[in-house]
Amino acid sequence: MLRRSFIQKAAVGATAGTIAGAPAIVHAQPAIRWRLTSSFPKSLDTLFGASDVIAKRVAALTDGKFSITTHAAGEIVPGLQVLDAVQNGTVEFGHTAMYYYFGKDPTFAFGTAVPFGMNFRQYNAWWYHGGGEKIYNDFCRKSNVVALLCGNTGEQAGGWFRREINSVDDLKGLKFRVGGFAGRVLSKLGVVPQQIAGGDIYSALEKGTIDAAEWVGPYDDEKLGFAKVARFYYAQGWWEIGPALHCIVNLKAWGTLPPQYQAAIQSACIEANVDMMAKYDAWNILALKRLLASGTQLRAFNQQIMQASHKAALEVYAETNAANAEFKKIHDSYFGFQRDQVAWSQVIEMRQAQFLASVVK
Amino acid sequence: MLRRSFIQKAAVGATAGTIAGAPAIVHAQPAIRWRLTSSFPKSLDTLFGASDVIAKRVAALTDGKFSITTHAAGEIVPGLQVLDAVQNGTVEFGHTAMYYYFGKDPTFAFGTAVPFGMNFRQYNAWWYHGGGEKIYNDFCRKSNVVALLCGNTGEQAGGWFRREINSVDDLKGLKFRVGGFAGRVLSKLGVVPQQIAGGDIYSALEKGTIDAAEWVGPYDDEKLGFAKVARFYYAQGWWEIGPALHCIVNLKAWGTLPPQYQAAIQSACIEANVDMMAKYDAWNILALKRLLASGTQLRAFNQQIMQASHKAALEVYAETNAANAEFKKIHDSYFGFQRDQVAWSQVIEMRQAQFLASVVK
Repeated sequence: MLRRSFIQKAAVGATAGTIAGAPAIVHAQPAIRWRLTSSFPKSLDTLFGASDVIAKRVAALTDGKFSITTHAAGEIVPGLQVLDAVQNGTVEFGHTAMYYYFGKDPTFAFGTAVPFGMNFRQYNAWWYHGGGEKIYNDFCRKSNVVALLCGNTGEQAGGWFRREINSVDDLKGLKFRVGGFAGRVLSKLGVVPQQIAGGDIYSALEKGTIDAAEWVGPYDDEKLGFAKVARFYYAQGWWEIGPALHCIVNLKAWGTLPPQYQAAIQSACIEANVDMMAKYDAWNILALKRLLASGTQLRAFNQQIMQASHKAALEVYAETNAANAEFKKIHDSYFGFQRDQVAWSQVIEMRQAQFLASVVK
Repeated sequence: MLRRSFIQKAAVGATAGTIAGAPAIVHAQPAIRWRLTSSFPKSLDTLFGASDVIAKRVAALTDGKFSITTHAAGEIVPGLQVLDAVQNGTVEFGHTAMYYYFGKDPTFAFGTAVPFGMNFRQYNAWWYHGGGEKIYNDFCRKSNVVALLCGNTGEQAGGWFRREINSVDDLKGLKFRVGGFAGRVLSKLGVVPQQIAGGDIYSALEKGTIDAAEWVGPYDDEKLGFAKVARFYYAQGWWEIGPALHCIVNLKAWGTLPPQYQAAIQSACIEANVDMMAKYDAWNILALKRLLASGTQLRAFNQQIMQASHKAALEVYAETNAANAEFKKIHDSYFGFQRDQVAWSQVIEMRQAQFLASVVK
């Protein structure tokens, strides 16, 4: 069973006064209604849709008695204020990408993705069986929330560019819509990072206010129409190799739930995690084929750019580790785990993937 | 939400007379006790352990009212008779690798692994969102069971060899413990496949009754001690690139469950799926390091062997497709889906994995 001991323990403070009278051991479970606020618009059916996956599964598991209503970004609070809303108890439940709160503390980024970080499988291994869930929740506890892993997009694309990028020099002065940690790394290479909400990217690219933009991957990017205003689509999105999504629950609200309902949320979040990855894997390639058929030019950052980016990322990590002990603690756990995982992938899966690529056409 | 519509429909025949009186809509759920029979011994804590993961989660989700007792191979029926036991209603619930029933019909193999098949992520995408769950359960229904995906070992090792294998000629006459579909393919290259139960492999290797044996991967193989009697450990286990495990439920028993308990089993199986992969990823590399430190020599089948094996596999597929329409139906779905997935992995994840392998040491 996935390690839940930490999460159950995390709520001890909140539940101390509640457990004795909790209805978990009586036969009729209580009717509970929660609100979930999402960082995503309904149009992103894989991302926002995960909250519906969770709400439906929880309802099925509790015979409808634990009801969760899902609210898109902006319905209750703006998409980037989910953490605040859950922390303050405005809502019990949120669905978000934790790196949105990078500005509060860069340590949050380990919940979603960090440059040259782990992929879906590696992140799951770290989270569920490598100490990740515990160490990350030790950090989140101060924000008054419990974080449950509930999704992953798989490696994201490097973004849409109006012109080709063939060298580090081509990055200098480039106005690139890219957020948080990646922006900090790319700044070292001369990029001018731009923070622009999803809905405004298209017009900024069209007007030339920005030169490039990254969003998610083919399935989501196609919907926003970027292909019409930027011809070159880059692979090697090294800043988001396995971006994870999380549900966050207000710590006090979590503590008031009967164990059966806690188990329902845990199960539903695990399902949403594997479900989102399966959807992206099944659908991204179909969207990419459509994009390529209508003229998109697929490219990948070359080795010079990748190596310069990696060097810049190591500098940012060193600076952040020096300034932030909590960041360093999770950094060391995360990248120590990654080292073994990269070695393991070379022994087994990578070699096989290369062979299959040579024979499956 | 993972597509469950098929599975719910699959039970319609069995439930037609039951639904009206089912207790799903009343508030007190019934106390139900099921037995699960596993194909695995308790010593394999990741494989057998999945059945405990499932039983514990189902108990937590139903406040203990739906109780599943887990039984290792041999306690109720032998490990390779799980399908028969569930099919006949001896037990309600089984945990097995469906390719064990390859001898009944090679079509069963698509439930676990087929030569040069899909990896964990690709298989999940096919099963949950590529039509796999439906097409495979259409086939299983005739065996009176519903199959739920509930685990994956990740790519397995190519096995333990007493001498190096440097060419296809070195395979000729090789007595190799390898089962089912892989054995049929390897026969074409002159290998003499041996069917030997897990517990008997060590002594056969030690005595030289066999020249080589494949089992799972470092974490499980280390426990069986093969390193002491065979020095060379091969990667490129092309016959098991993403072996999946399944829970099977007797169709009539499934139909008598309240929807809430069906949901509990579905959720628990999804959890076991991601949990097993995370365990193997976290633990295989640690076991491999120990094996290498104590003298195991890591090798990989070379391109000549891989290409000859792939050619032989395509011949076996062509022969089996010609002889078995159901096999062909699933073959075409599975390999059609794989083609897109291999293309997608080349665009995104493989390139990144290669870069990381070059910088993460």
